[in-house]
Amino acid sequence: MPSLPERVGLDVGGTRLKAGRISFDGRVLDERSVAVPADGKELADTLVAVARELGAEHSVGLGLPGLIDRERGLVLDSPNIPQLEELPLGELLSGALGLESVHLENDANAAALGELWLGAARGAEHALVVTLGTGIGGGLVLDGELFLGAGLAGEIGHVRIDPAGPICGCGGHGCLETLASATAARRRALERGLPEDDPGNLELLAERGRDPASPEGELLFEVGRDLGIGLSTAVCLLDLRTFVIGGGFAAALDALGPGIRAGIRAGAYGDRVDLVRILPATLGSSAGWIGAASLALR
Amino acid sequence: MPSLPERVGLDVGGTRLKAGRISFDGRVLDERSVAVPADGKELADTLVAVARELGAEHSVGLGLPGLIDRERGLVLDSPNIPQLEELPLGELLSGALGLESVHLENDANAAALGELWLGAARGAEHALVVTLGTGIGGGLVLDGELFLGAGLAGEIGHVRIDPAGPICGCGGHGCLETLASATAARRRALERGLPEDDPGNLELLAERGRDPASPEGELLFEVGRDLGIGLSTAVCLLDLRTFVIGGGFAAALDALGPGIRAGIRAGAYGDRVDLVRILPATLGSSAGWIGAASLALR
Repeated sequence: MPSLPERVGLDVGGTRLKAGRISFDGRVLDERSVAVPADGKELADTLVAVARELGAEHSVGLGLPGLIDRERGLVLDSPNIPQLEELPLGELLSGALGLESVHLENDANAAALGELWLGAARGAEHALVVTLGTGIGGGLVLDGELFLGAGLAGEIGHVRIDPAGPICGCGGHGCLETLASATAARRRALERGLPEDDPGNLELLAERGRDPASPEGELLFEVGRDLGIGLSTAVCLLDLRTFVIGGGFAAALDALGPGIRAGIRAGAYGDRVDLVRILPATLGSSAGWIGAASLALR
Repeated sequence: MPSLPERVGLDVGGTRLKAGRISFDGRVLDERSVAVPADGKELADTLVAVARELGAEHSVGLGLPGLIDRERGLVLDSPNIPQLEELPLGELLSGALGLESVHLENDANAAALGELWLGAARGAEHALVVTLGTGIGGGLVLDGELFLGAGLAGEIGHVRIDPAGPICGCGGHGCLETLASATAARRRALERGLPEDDPGNLELLAERGRDPASPEGELLFEVGRDLGIGLSTAVCLLDLRTFVIGGGFAAALDALGPGIRAGIRAGAYGDRVDLVRILPATLGSSAGWIGAASLALR
């Protein structure tokens, strides 16, 4: 077979850049994690350097937070990593490394592709892969393929679940991520006067929440219920039966699970909740670069 | 070509049964409309008689309100026409008429297939065809085909848009159809003390609502806005850009339109509302039987 069976993927997160090299049959050959520089030029240089270290040739895949222009190879809008905006990443990488192509994809979609290829969504006909973290992202798998619609499909985090809900970074009110993201859970914990958590993670909240009768358990049930209400829109619209939950806040999935099911039961027409599978993602923070690499293998 | 190029479709509504015969290239050859009998046995006999009059042979398509079991050829659950439930319609029709197959489909999906074949959704890659009437139904077109998911996709009417909203026939709270169906508009008009409308139709409300400054115009803006919020879930999840609005209450689409756009603007992430097309359905109450007939042509 003349085509090269290995590809490099990179995934830019809020603080860490994860990247790796993977064989066409899904063996991880190399993996890196480096800090994301605050300066756009430095970030571009870092992407080039990491891709070079990983031996990128022919093409690479890039997972990026925000609104992607796949044709022009850049990020149009990225509230969390504004230094990415309007950087000609496709040109920079292909020029510096002599690549034929650079494939850009939204980070939540890249994570969905990773979970679809090698993770919890493997073999799913239809599924929504939810990235539960600072915000809430989603990648929609329909008929075994990533579904993009006109380009931006999968944005479950901005489905509005409560017109009286908090204002969202997108300008809307009561978007799912204002009620069920890690950020929202932390805010709701503070509003209830729960003991302050390490702002960098939610481990303490998740651990205490394992007891459903604890104040943390009650909070996580409510947060999970709001998440389930959001997911129920996908049950109504698409009759989806498989949800894969990843991202940092998925560490609390045990405590969130009963609430998620209650929310789907409340929001979805018919008695379908027992047919719905809520699966933890299995690739952790590697899902994004693995999915990005799979773009280059297609 | 040995296969027969004409098919018969039937569509059972709340009060009227519409049916017809159509050529493979979309010429309507015959069309009927008869009352729906209140008794299940009589309804089955009427379906057989109408299909026979229309010269059904080989196969027919049936559009039916409610939850369909396509394999067994019956309606499992139909809140509006309970006399349909558990009638072995597929067997009855194929037995009485010597048909090879009877294709059953949910009425909103049948209407979507009709609009996709010969109406406003023709040529659409992705679209949601909304049936706005006593309730709100939907048929989802993705990649040019009706999308069913696990079987029940398209239920936009039961997407929950307000947790504080009215209780719905499905048992949920604040489903779209409790706020934006014809029934909901009539209830909201009464709540405001607007002059009573003919309970059989909404023509008066729609006509008075053409003046946006009239009380009826203000009401229809608000009803439209709720409808737009509901549709915005499909914009977020699927990045849909085409909505086709049919059903009896679509007669008020001129007055509902500005509200629908305001609702999509409020509910959808990014400035996408100007890219969204809201199209009136063009097949009227014939969409269902035409779509049902297309099932038999596939």
